[in-house]
Amino acid sequence: MARWEPDARQRLVAAALDLFTEQGYDNTTVAQIADRAGLTKSTFFRHFPDKREVLVAGQDTLSRLFAEGIAAAPDAATPLEAVAAALDAAAVAITPERRELGPRLQAVVAANSELQERDALKRVGLAKAMSDALQRRGVPDPAASLAAELGVLAFKRAFARWMDPGNHQEFGDLARQSLQELRAASAALG
Amino acid sequence: MARWEPDARQRLVAAALDLFTEQGYDNTTVAQIADRAGLTKSTFFRHFPDKREVLVAGQDTLSRLFAEGIAAAPDAATPLEAVAAALDAAAVAITPERRELGPRLQAVVAANSELQERDALKRVGLAKAMSDALQRRGVPDPAASLAAELGVLAFKRAFARWMDPGNHQEFGDLARQSLQELRAASAALG
Repeated sequence: MARWEPDARQRLVAAALDLFTEQGYDNTTVAQIADRAGLTKSTFFRHFPDKREVLVAGQDTLSRLFAEGIAAAPDAATPLEAVAAALDAAAVAITPERRELGPRLQAVVAANSELQERDALKRVGLAKAMSDALQRRGVPDPAASLAAELGVLAFKRAFARWMDPGNHQEFGDLARQSLQELRAASAALG
Repeated sequence: MARWEPDARQRLVAAALDLFTEQGYDNTTVAQIADRAGLTKSTFFRHFPDKREVLVAGQDTLSRLFAEGIAAAPDAATPLEAVAAALDAAAVAITPERRELGPRLQAVVAANSELQERDALKRVGLAKAMSDALQRRGVPDPAASLAAELGVLAFKRAFARWMDPGNHQEFGDLARQSLQELRAASAALG
């Protein structure tokens, strides 16, 4: 088996989801995941500290893309325009294989309270990545926290729509549309 | 020892926080917490399923108060006015002993990633309690989710201010003030 596995990470995620779905999260071991992926346990541990982290594999990438998008927005951009740039930047990570994995991932998380906690922490982490990046641009709190919450809500809504089998729009378009809806809803809150 | 302990829950929370602070969360057992509180293990388990849940002891109460406040708001109330009613209703749970426990609780949570996850899930739970109550009033999504996020942000900001030793305002006043600041920030997001 080659030590360098170009798509090892993705294969591990797919194998883990298969096994969690078939036999449950608690009954699945790292050794089984590695085996199903055709990889070794040590390859698994080069990518993930434990089986739970497989399920939030995308968090660091998303956080980095959000921060980069916000940093690269024009100086004159409003906080929400900077958040729109974050969502645009994140679109590169929303690859076609995620569309197939997403609903299964959500089903596994929904069935396990420990995973729901990890998922909630992921949400907090994504909001913090946006909020920190906005503050580095000089956006004060609470505007930065608020814009970040809008950004995370828009991301989640867009992702849910994008996973819908009937959807044919690009993620970036759905994200901008979701953010625009939230902006309109925000103006109507009273 | 009396079977009926009127302040058992509060004594268990205080004892747990003492021990978590003194010797660390991982090194503390339920037996030690019960002993420090002058209660039995079985009394502990009548109040909490495990030592971790002691740290989110207030979540169910807060969720219930938020929901009741929103349900009781006048029919003509806007979504944010209903959220303000939720924060008012929650103020009854922000008792003086919380002011002393709050900073120690935050220190324990900050030192332990498992507890941060539970705390993140608590935040999600509180937002869901508000969002569900708003939807029962006919507020559609995403307005309901967004108003709920504003409510949770306002609650957290008000609570941080209320715990500040230099503060002399009531929690209810701080909550309304925080919500008003978030509303103004929201209007300026661009």
